[in-house]
Amino acid sequence: MSEQLLNQPRARQLMEREGVDGLLAATFENVYYLSNVWMENFFVLPRQTQGFAIVARDTLARPIVVASIGEVANYAESAVADCTLITYGQFYRFVNEHAQLSAGESTVKDRVIDHPDRSRSNVIEALASGLQEAGLTRATVAYDERGLFIETFAALQQRLPDVKFIPGYQLLRRIRAVKTAEELRRLEAVLRVNEGAMLAAMKVARPGVTEQDMIEEFERYVVSRGAKVMFTQIAFGPRGGQGYVMKRDAVLSEGEVIRFDVGCMLDGYNTDIARNFSIGEPDERCIRYFDATVAGIDAAAAAMQPGATAAEVFHAAVAAVRENGIPQFARTHVGHGIGLEVYDIPLLAPTDKTPIEDGMVLQIETPYYELGWAGIQPEDTVVATSSGGTNLTSLSRKFEVVNPAQRPK
Amino acid sequence: MSEQLLNQPRARQLMEREGVDGLLAATFENVYYLSNVWMENFFVLPRQTQGFAIVARDTLARPIVVASIGEVANYAESAVADCTLITYGQFYRFVNEHAQLSAGESTVKDRVIDHPDRSRSNVIEALASGLQEAGLTRATVAYDERGLFIETFAALQQRLPDVKFIPGYQLLRRIRAVKTAEELRRLEAVLRVNEGAMLAAMKVARPGVTEQDMIEEFERYVVSRGAKVMFTQIAFGPRGGQGYVMKRDAVLSEGEVIRFDVGCMLDGYNTDIARNFSIGEPDERCIRYFDATVAGIDAAAAAMQPGATAAEVFHAAVAAVRENGIPQFARTHVGHGIGLEVYDIPLLAPTDKTPIEDGMVLQIETPYYELGWAGIQPEDTVVATSSGGTNLTSLSRKFEVVNPAQRPK
Repeated sequence: MSEQLLNQPRARQLMEREGVDGLLAATFENVYYLSNVWMENFFVLPRQTQGFAIVARDTLARPIVVASIGEVANYAESAVADCTLITYGQFYRFVNEHAQLSAGESTVKDRVIDHPDRSRSNVIEALASGLQEAGLTRATVAYDERGLFIETFAALQQRLPDVKFIPGYQLLRRIRAVKTAEELRRLEAVLRVNEGAMLAAMKVARPGVTEQDMIEEFERYVVSRGAKVMFTQIAFGPRGGQGYVMKRDAVLSEGEVIRFDVGCMLDGYNTDIARNFSIGEPDERCIRYFDATVAGIDAAAAAMQPGATAAEVFHAAVAAVRENGIPQFARTHVGHGIGLEVYDIPLLAPTDKTPIEDGMVLQIETPYYELGWAGIQPEDTVVATSSGGTNLTSLSRKFEVVNPAQRPK
Repeated sequence: MSEQLLNQPRARQLMEREGVDGLLAATFENVYYLSNVWMENFFVLPRQTQGFAIVARDTLARPIVVASIGEVANYAESAVADCTLITYGQFYRFVNEHAQLSAGESTVKDRVIDHPDRSRSNVIEALASGLQEAGLTRATVAYDERGLFIETFAALQQRLPDVKFIPGYQLLRRIRAVKTAEELRRLEAVLRVNEGAMLAAMKVARPGVTEQDMIEEFERYVVSRGAKVMFTQIAFGPRGGQGYVMKRDAVLSEGEVIRFDVGCMLDGYNTDIARNFSIGEPDERCIRYFDATVAGIDAAAAAMQPGATAAEVFHAAVAAVRENGIPQFARTHVGHGIGLEVYDIPLLAPTDKTPIEDGMVLQIETPYYELGWAGIQPEDTVVATSSGGTNLTSLSRKFEVVNPAQRPK
């Protein structure tokens, strides 16, 4: 776990192009991306957690983590090799003088008990030290403006008046858009978990089952693989066309469309995939429409040549769905990047001119929502390569019809 | 689900005292608290989701929700009775002309297909309309500064120069600090789920089990009750004293301390409770220390008289732990409120002078972390009443020792 996730060449190139000397990350995903330090508190207290990673453009492999002293154990056990930790605050731990301490415990003893750093009285002083250590006190620093609290930012700007702070959340997303080999490995691993969970949920599908029953089966599979539940939308029949995801006591009827739009997280990386199934023969239009939406995905994947824009991929998908059986089809977007956030860039939308690059991983989705009928929706994970998109999804690409006679009553 | 969660008398009183005419909520918890509209996107895309609820002090029961048009179904199915929705953006849905639509579907058809509101071109215009509708265009508005994007805030302030926007995140937390009867009911319901999950995890505990095995059992129980996993820290022996929560392949030995510090969410409300167990007799110091930390919880609960301050409760807990067997005990805090966030106010810390009020619900925790040994930690849920704290936790208040002979190999 000590390999840095950061795509260093891409970060250096984009930072140079935009005149950015350093990055100040302040969200779970960006701190983890730069340092490998997993700050669980971001999930527990999303509006109250402050934790940071700083890198300078010339020393991208040497992140400086700034955090409450409670994070020392996480740092000791998981940070990339060449990472520095600057702490603030106080935390009481004690030590068993008779015990042989592990390396991680010894670090905690040293940093928390024997030599706690009292020089930084608060988060502002710790951040100022971190930026100084990185040589960024007279520099242009792109900061994670959706993570840094406004009062922290105001005080930091006052403390370091010679730093030119610019919003960096979008720059960090642009850096993360092209995945490294390790990120691709993790995206495939979590995709397999998500696919397995869908098939597990389908094993309990029969007329009379509730959405909640299938959701619980899906989520049990996810947590049984050590993954994190992110969203589990399993909707029956017309509920799949309306978009309401709570109050999940709807009961499945024979032939009714089951719509999955689901995601989970493993080792920081996300999925977001979709499929339709039914128990017993559905309305013939379901299968015809599903095949049309799959044709849209295939057209988008074929259009994912490096150099094509996200907008061109969008238009290819919409045109293919219309030509293949849903002439009225319309969407505002047909997909998005995936990674440490469920929506990485680009967005496959008419206004997004981002060029597709080798190593981008996209969710392609062409859903058709019809009130009073159903939600028809395939969504696949596709990686852009020099010869076009490669679909990583291993699920069947058909609308799957299960014979109800094969199901226990 | 149509009863508003908001504690209206308290909101009115605090808003009057602070000269606040209106509230602009911009986080999952505060939007839900004011309107009952559950915006799942806040969990899926925590850094990218914008959704709002506005109330004026004189019309607290009539929230105005401002959201992307994709939220119409959620609004139609879950908002409080007297809620207005203002949308922006575009979303394509279609309609089956032969179907009988439900009330919710009819609202979606009307708002998304037949009469989409194109007058608000973006989120800024929609927010401006919402504040106008609430009569707040020349008023003091406390806004949720940790939810509103900085660029949205800057544009909104420019659009409505006569609004005095002040940070409102802490005011919203102060309003939420005293729970209504419905909130108490929900807090007890999710507490029962959490307790059940701990006992389920203990059923698979035996020498040789891994932390991950027990974590998965815990989380399967949580999702099987329709609840959301929030954090599952189950650590064995010295790992409970160090604070590192990842890499969970540690194997349990006979007599080793099992430390739970766990939480989940149901219907928006959270838990955060802790306990120790072992399989086989532990070091006698474990039980002695556990009893001392429980004495701290009891002293804190007894001190939770309305009018006492959070700091006084803190000092009562620390003194009791020291007197009852851990003379070196020290902590920076011994607990916190619980509700729509895992940490509601107050914080039971020496610097927090918040007066305890009837109806506050607190997590009281007196953990003792010793490197090379263990983490000793009880944590209970206590509601303040006019006669002191009432402990809502139903788990045993002893360090529970399970006979290993009762466990399958």
